[in-house]
Amino acid sequence: MAEMIRVDDLRDPRLRDYVDLRDVSLRKLLETERGLYIAEGEKVVRRAVTAGHRPRSFLLAPRWAETLSDVLESSDAPCFVLEEKSIEHVTGFHVHRGALAAMDRPEPRSPESVLEQARRVVVAEDLVDHTNIGALMRNVAALGFDAVLLSPRCADPLYRRSVKVAMGAVFSLPYARIEDWYAAPELLRDHGFTSYAMTLADDAVPLDEVRPEPGEKIALIVGSEGPGLTEHWQRAADHRVVIPMAAGIDSLNVAASTAVACWHFRP
Amino acid sequence: MAEMIRVDDLRDPRLRDYVDLRDVSLRKLLETERGLYIAEGEKVVRRAVTAGHRPRSFLLAPRWAETLSDVLESSDAPCFVLEEKSIEHVTGFHVHRGALAAMDRPEPRSPESVLEQARRVVVAEDLVDHTNIGALMRNVAALGFDAVLLSPRCADPLYRRSVKVAMGAVFSLPYARIEDWYAAPELLRDHGFTSYAMTLADDAVPLDEVRPEPGEKIALIVGSEGPGLTEHWQRAADHRVVIPMAAGIDSLNVAASTAVACWHFRP
Repeated sequence: MAEMIRVDDLRDPRLRDYVDLRDVSLRKLLETERGLYIAEGEKVVRRAVTAGHRPRSFLLAPRWAETLSDVLESSDAPCFVLEEKSIEHVTGFHVHRGALAAMDRPEPRSPESVLEQARRVVVAEDLVDHTNIGALMRNVAALGFDAVLLSPRCADPLYRRSVKVAMGAVFSLPYARIEDWYAAPELLRDHGFTSYAMTLADDAVPLDEVRPEPGEKIALIVGSEGPGLTEHWQRAADHRVVIPMAAGIDSLNVAASTAVACWHFRP
Repeated sequence: MAEMIRVDDLRDPRLRDYVDLRDVSLRKLLETERGLYIAEGEKVVRRAVTAGHRPRSFLLAPRWAETLSDVLESSDAPCFVLEEKSIEHVTGFHVHRGALAAMDRPEPRSPESVLEQARRVVVAEDLVDHTNIGALMRNVAALGFDAVLLSPRCADPLYRRSVKVAMGAVFSLPYARIEDWYAAPELLRDHGFTSYAMTLADDAVPLDEVRPEPGEKIALIVGSEGPGLTEHWQRAADHRVVIPMAAGIDSLNVAASTAVACWHFRP
């Protein structure tokens, strides 16, 4: 059972994991150094714990201590109880529903271990936006793909904003970062995957005409919103695929086009 | 040719259309009263003007006055030139790329006039979130549906945030608000549309099994993110459709599920 601790001094050093949550560069530094991430909102906190992640502490407004009592029951991490206004002071913004937890980051997985257990994966190149990463992972998980692989420059799926947008899908969907991005096409091939690069190139095959072989292991490669996939991937992929767009409209958002493609490639 | 006006006093009344852009309730009031909306960013400003909307004025950082010179050439609205820092002071936030325009709102269209010229429409119920409305309209336009119809409580597609997320699709995609929401099912039927309500109900038909008749006019009904479609629509729709989800994942985001469904219903 988590120990309930009322905190009076907002500069209490035990609250340091929660300070200045809006400062992205500060958080990047702190969260990597301390090996933690922040779960926000009752639902997300609950999912993080259910997924087997270990809470370091909770920071709750009084009414949430009751709603989350079963989660607190199952943990021996301290639970700091503060009025919502005071939580706002510590974190620097209005916290969604006054419920936070600082969680231990799970050990990163290797791309090999993720690929060995997957048949359909999405590979994301340089998605630097936390909202896009979160939305993409939510869509990929909902539409039954097995995992996500990320290029080195992709945003952190465990950053607070990503986690919130993903509705916790980042806890259940396996993912890994590919450090040697240049070798990624070979890595996928070695694991028996056929790669489909999503692009806007004129000579790409329209998605409706793409029919994968039965039993084929599928890697869907998606690029960043602005420039799209790099030349390297454009050349290296087994197939290049385009979602036909209406005249005058540039593109779908990357999370939406990934959803459409995942749907098309459903088993 | 727009007259270029350097402004020194940030309280200059000619800047009043741009004051406190972050204050949603203030903006709602002002923009309805004055019949204006705000276009933000070079691309969006350009698209608004290209779509035939009339600028009341521009507010640009010096470098954008050059990039947008062709747009300014075509207009006789005044162009206020301010340093980016000063624009931030007026609007209350960091303006995307220092380019804004206050535009006249186009006359609202009637749902009847929109339906008469459409064969495939999305009907949105109570999407109160500006990001969701913007993303939905971008997806619907990109995937070649003809129009969007909105329930009375839907967020404003011309609110700054919606316009930005929609990448200007709100200018090209016809839309209308249905004031008598209770009569909406009949309105669609009278115009020859078959309605498909997107729901998570257990007894709905999985999307992959839905095969509309050739030539059928299609109305895709989507509900708000939390509660989903109201009982009224659940009962009134011709068909109820579900996107099959992976175990343990609640739902796709409404803009993503609309994209998947639009793709499925492509001609």
